[in-house]
Amino acid sequence: MPDATNATAGQPDAPVRAVVLGSGAWGTTFAMVLADAGCDVTIWGRSQQVCDQIEREHRNSRNLPGIRLPEAIRATTDAAEALAGADLVVVAIPSQSARETLTALRDDVPDGAVVVSLMKGVELDTDRRMSEVVSEALGIDESRVVVVSGPNLAREIAERQPTATVVAGTDPGATALVARACSTPYFRPYTNADVVGVELCGAVKNVIAVAVGIAQGCGYGLNTTATVITRGLVEITRLGLALGANVETFPGLAGMGDLMATCASPLSRNHTLGKHIGAGLTLDEAIAATGGTAEGVKSSRSVLELAHAHGVEMPITAAVAAVLHEGMPVEEMAMSLLARPKRAEGL
Amino acid sequence: MPDATNATAGQPDAPVRAVVLGSGAWGTTFAMVLADAGCDVTIWGRSQQVCDQIEREHRNSRNLPGIRLPEAIRATTDAAEALAGADLVVVAIPSQSARETLTALRDDVPDGAVVVSLMKGVELDTDRRMSEVVSEALGIDESRVVVVSGPNLAREIAERQPTATVVAGTDPGATALVARACSTPYFRPYTNADVVGVELCGAVKNVIAVAVGIAQGCGYGLNTTATVITRGLVEITRLGLALGANVETFPGLAGMGDLMATCASPLSRNHTLGKHIGAGLTLDEAIAATGGTAEGVKSSRSVLELAHAHGVEMPITAAVAAVLHEGMPVEEMAMSLLARPKRAEGL
Repeated sequence: MPDATNATAGQPDAPVRAVVLGSGAWGTTFAMVLADAGCDVTIWGRSQQVCDQIEREHRNSRNLPGIRLPEAIRATTDAAEALAGADLVVVAIPSQSARETLTALRDDVPDGAVVVSLMKGVELDTDRRMSEVVSEALGIDESRVVVVSGPNLAREIAERQPTATVVAGTDPGATALVARACSTPYFRPYTNADVVGVELCGAVKNVIAVAVGIAQGCGYGLNTTATVITRGLVEITRLGLALGANVETFPGLAGMGDLMATCASPLSRNHTLGKHIGAGLTLDEAIAATGGTAEGVKSSRSVLELAHAHGVEMPITAAVAAVLHEGMPVEEMAMSLLARPKRAEGL
Repeated sequence: MPDATNATAGQPDAPVRAVVLGSGAWGTTFAMVLADAGCDVTIWGRSQQVCDQIEREHRNSRNLPGIRLPEAIRATTDAAEALAGADLVVVAIPSQSARETLTALRDDVPDGAVVVSLMKGVELDTDRRMSEVVSEALGIDESRVVVVSGPNLAREIAERQPTATVVAGTDPGATALVARACSTPYFRPYTNADVVGVELCGAVKNVIAVAVGIAQGCGYGLNTTATVITRGLVEITRLGLALGANVETFPGLAGMGDLMATCASPLSRNHTLGKHIGAGLTLDEAIAATGGTAEGVKSSRSVLELAHAHGVEMPITAAVAAVLHEGMPVEEMAMSLLARPKRAEGL
């Protein structure tokens, strides 16, 4: 019965032709979901070695070790070949180089293709959300861009563990096409028209993950973690409402769901960096111990600027920025958050 | 600066006289919070031994081992003595015996005292929320009853780790009195007028904790956990709205916050019982392995009845009830949840 429902709704008559731009862990995993959902899938990657291994051995041992990929997935370093005739173009490349990469591929993306962004973050300098970057770089209307975001740690999905996600777009037809194309027995998409809210959740969650890491690095437990996440979501929501998002998005899968999975994951760089800071390392030491910087470090400042510009109070984000960039001692952080004047819960 | 704010707002001129009914872990911990906030606190307990130890050694080694209590906390088995002159009566006794215990104390509770319920759950047979039970048993108006609920694992608060909570009441003066009386540098109350929503969150969270336990017992990881919690909150919210609650309560500290802390805690019986079920034990075996039943086992049925009566769809609660009480195999549970027809996110 469930299978019948899925088969009917998930597989149109002709298979959807999907191209995934990027052969990282999430791009490769999403290609696997699309293939399992019945799409005809090609991965475009920069590394000939990775593409060859996907084609011949059905593995991507550099980015997704230990996972066997569906045999039908193809891979190539030739973007024009990959993109020819694509119905769906999935973008899974680093956020900060997306504009440059996509601009170069602009002429190869077929007219009428729906473009899916798996990217999270805000473009530095321009403060654009990633769907705006995609639309501008490819010269297509924003309604052709659909965002996928949720509690989606790549590794677990690659092991076909059950999860759900949000497929957000302003055009109902394009959104439904993407939802159908990635619906499998273990991956369940929910549609949402609130692209602004969904993308904002993905960008700000990294700052909250740093805050949770700091609290845990200080030795605090589950109450503190739950408090920081819950109050963190309240301030993301306040910012979202000021930017025109829908209030219902934030307690959903792309908001609370993703935040919870990220903050629980030992693999999250934001979370790990925060723990080092909480344990007493300086920012430089924490970056070195984490093996590189984490997105929340930069985002804390840009999110705070956005909040100031819109007159929104974001005490947790402000505390993270103060600890990372202004030398505020971590011991003061918890106390400064808890000692604010008592007030009603809510937005 | 933060300390000055707290001192001004948290401590009225004359100390609040507070009595905590119950010497369990949460009652004793909350007594400690009240004492740290400047209240004059007496614990009433049934065990002479526990009361003596609190008075003489400032410890409650049976229920809160390893924690040193403030010396000012007194303890007695004499309810009339404890309750004489109390401004605040905090009820921290087992939910299912609350009506009987409180009825016996009815004449000792001073007129005009504000009564605080720390209890979670719904009374069996009557389906009453605990604040309703308190009001009926003591013969006082519901506006005199205030509820405290949030991500409040007793042990961590007893270690003075930072957390926040919700203080919910329909009378603003009584609610503010309780918030002031329990405000400390590590325990931050937020007020909320939505008693129905706050109490419903506390009752249904145990069912969702069983569901999360089942998923983890099946070997699923962080995505699945986050998905079950997030979609679980959606169905609690749907039920709450049907019962007149405020939609903003559910993503707050008493809803999402408490749910997250409970589902992460290895000490939660609901969570532990669910894990045993997920690992393949029968309900009887799981109850034995957990060392007793868990509230979510009974609640799954009563919540589902409430949902049916109000025409509310609660697929996770229904799946938990089916697995626990109707022999549905756990393997079918995840698939049955994920394979529902694709739809929009939201309520």
